[in-house]
Amino acid sequence: MARPTPLSGFPEWLPEGRIVEQHVLDVLRRTFELHGFAGVETRAVEPLDQLLRKGETSKEVYVLRRLQADPQQEDRGDTLGLHFDLTVPFARYVLENAGHLAFPFRRYQIQKVWRGERPQDGRFREFIQADIDVVGAGSLPYHYEVELPLVMAEALSALQEVGVPPVRVLVNNRKVAEGFYRGLGLDDVEAVLRSIDKLDKVGPEVVAELLVEEAGASADQATACLELAAISGPDEGVVDRVRDLAKRYDVSSDLLDEGLEELGMLIRAAAVRLPGTVVADLKIARGLDYYTGSVYETVLVGHEHLGSICSGGRYDTLASDGATTYPGVGLSVGVSRLVSRLLSAGLVRATRAVPTAVLVAVTDEDSRQRSDEVAAALRNRGIPVEVAPAAAKFGKQIRHADRRGIPFVWFLGAEGAPDEVKDIRSGEQVVADAAAWEPPAADRWPRVVPGDAH
Amino acid sequence: MARPTPLSGFPEWLPEGRIVEQHVLDVLRRTFELHGFAGVETRAVEPLDQLLRKGETSKEVYVLRRLQADPQQEDRGDTLGLHFDLTVPFARYVLENAGHLAFPFRRYQIQKVWRGERPQDGRFREFIQADIDVVGAGSLPYHYEVELPLVMAEALSALQEVGVPPVRVLVNNRKVAEGFYRGLGLDDVEAVLRSIDKLDKVGPEVVAELLVEEAGASADQATACLELAAISGPDEGVVDRVRDLAKRYDVSSDLLDEGLEELGMLIRAAAVRLPGTVVADLKIARGLDYYTGSVYETVLVGHEHLGSICSGGRYDTLASDGATTYPGVGLSVGVSRLVSRLLSAGLVRATRAVPTAVLVAVTDEDSRQRSDEVAAALRNRGIPVEVAPAAAKFGKQIRHADRRGIPFVWFLGAEGAPDEVKDIRSGEQVVADAAAWEPPAADRWPRVVPGDAH
Repeated sequence: MARPTPLSGFPEWLPEGRIVEQHVLDVLRRTFELHGFAGVETRAVEPLDQLLRKGETSKEVYVLRRLQADPQQEDRGDTLGLHFDLTVPFARYVLENAGHLAFPFRRYQIQKVWRGERPQDGRFREFIQADIDVVGAGSLPYHYEVELPLVMAEALSALQEVGVPPVRVLVNNRKVAEGFYRGLGLDDVEAVLRSIDKLDKVGPEVVAELLVEEAGASADQATACLELAAISGPDEGVVDRVRDLAKRYDVSSDLLDEGLEELGMLIRAAAVRLPGTVVADLKIARGLDYYTGSVYETVLVGHEHLGSICSGGRYDTLASDGATTYPGVGLSVGVSRLVSRLLSAGLVRATRAVPTAVLVAVTDEDSRQRSDEVAAALRNRGIPVEVAPAAAKFGKQIRHADRRGIPFVWFLGAEGAPDEVKDIRSGEQVVADAAAWEPPAADRWPRVVPGDAH
Repeated sequence: MARPTPLSGFPEWLPEGRIVEQHVLDVLRRTFELHGFAGVETRAVEPLDQLLRKGETSKEVYVLRRLQADPQQEDRGDTLGLHFDLTVPFARYVLENAGHLAFPFRRYQIQKVWRGERPQDGRFREFIQADIDVVGAGSLPYHYEVELPLVMAEALSALQEVGVPPVRVLVNNRKVAEGFYRGLGLDDVEAVLRSIDKLDKVGPEVVAELLVEEAGASADQATACLELAAISGPDEGVVDRVRDLAKRYDVSSDLLDEGLEELGMLIRAAAVRLPGTVVADLKIARGLDYYTGSVYETVLVGHEHLGSICSGGRYDTLASDGATTYPGVGLSVGVSRLVSRLLSAGLVRATRAVPTAVLVAVTDEDSRQRSDEVAAALRNRGIPVEVAPAAAKFGKQIRHADRRGIPFVWFLGAEGAPDEVKDIRSGEQVVADAAAWEPPAADRWPRVVPGDAH
């Protein structure tokens, strides 16, 4: 087999990169669990008709076929596809297990998803998502729309100590947008949202044209939509500015008022709990997703051009079985996109590429068992250890440790002499007892720390 | 959408089951890392021709197709399939990254794999495997064949405290089998192994017939093979019994001698490090897998009919790029099969289904922010907390905690009175300060404990 090459769009990390990724996942998991979210894992596949239920062809589903399948048994409507997000499978899981869950049900889910899109910078065909959602049976109070983005911001902010840039959560409310558009006389709300969603890509002039051509807006209405989209800010002043704008265009709408009240609550609560993190941004549209209240996007400060690394919002109908409707609110982090950037930009690194803190040297193959015993004694006290591959000259064993990034080498004492341990970085070598010696706390496990870019 | 039903072969757990599974994964990961194995994660897909390289059609690969793919671009030899194990992707990863890895390279890998086989008890189409392997560049000393099954046995034994039955690791050595068969005059070693592999399923009479029909054995040779397969035991007596058998059938073989010496070393080391766990069993054949030295299977004591939950062995050629050959040795735990049994047999359970230790009650919606502040203060000290969904009557809030399995409910003091916290299991309610109160250690997080079957 010739040396294989990577597959575009299917990222993999070297062991050091995986330590960074695992740390990110561990920190997210811990924060989610501290907030009472239960871990759920769903199968990777869903029936194809369920994946396409909302017409999500833009997400390019991968369809599965059994290589040995009987062709006569194919295409019976039981075709399976790989999930392209964790929301569709979670909605199905809630319906399937509703009788066993207590609502409002809080869950986190960290899994790979697959999209057959053309790979490009920051867009992968296989990537890890980390989602949190709260779902109610029949109803779900608004305060969860305040809580969820704050939990996610807290989880991402907990990564700042290892060198992850601060995050800024951009929030909007569909009710504000819809109420304003309808109040202006624009009834094709979807077409307006679709146009506004392109603002960052094509700029206001082109969006104005789109609004006229595709949403049936007059030049004046288009200007109003663009003025709304231009409003952003970290405090309640934003709400006042929207009210002023509405007054100026003679827009009056209960939906707009309701949305502004909700947006104001979110901004006020965020200013108390995570000052400076949440910003209202009235141009956030979230394209065609079926949100009905708050919507969220999250950027890394200083890396805004990477786009949103964490998005979500409120669905009035996350799932429904006819008898009961399940509203939900949640956010999803694109972990692979985040980790890829952290590694490629040198923002975060691991202090070593192996778990091992100590390599126990082997004096000769006949005494390997003694080295194994020292290793077991150290491991019993929670120190990660491996034993040298061969009883080579000690210089060679030290070079092996160095190549693997292992900081300490342990030498067995000859004929009753005590053991010794060498810090191969400083060269310092001291007498040591396997029943008592401790590595410095900073060396016990590989740590994740700010990288060279800092 | 009507209530969906589970897909056969694609297991999913309720949150309580997922806590058990996560605990199993955490314990395996910790043991592997204590032994210096680095975590690696590979993409879920491999080129189809690589998946079929060893003719593994019995593992029934799932092939992928992009729903939106241009038909003209299909079947260009770049068809992808889901991996059916973690060995094929790891071999490819080693070749692809050889220049960045220090050999012998120790890695663990915990991921889902997919096989399109007919689902049946304990066999899934999607399941989690947890693998450890050591791979050398050019050569790999025998002592790793002793180390690896002991690491895995230690990892699985670490689960006994939560109610997992003890494991028994059954070991054999391909060199013993091959040396003995060739010494007998049977040169189609694969055919013999294939027949012996069926012993547990069809019994010795049928295997004797298979040996005659498919491996070209005489009745006498078939008897000899069955006598070898009948040998098992926990100590070196096994080696002597094989030597006696070989002498009786006039078999003399350097390969047999080498295999017996290796098997003896493994048995001796295991008796010192994990007494009573490793048993030599000369019928272990591992079917058509391409092992060249030690082979391993692992059964749960008392659940032997479940089959092997952890298997592996030595490959002289795990991978090769023409210039360098990479020998390896490793084992793979079928985590889903294990967890499925632990849950269905009531061997293991979680003390609750949610991470949450404390539900902070809400007195009225206007004071929700005070409840949020108490929750934040408790979380800051590592206590998992959620806030009540609504300012309902306290009785209703307590019932909500009870339904979710949350042991404590926190009440805010009215008008300067101190807060109080109630253990809803005992009914005991005490004055508490959010800056200092600690739950009992056993209640802080859900624990995994022996289930009702114990």
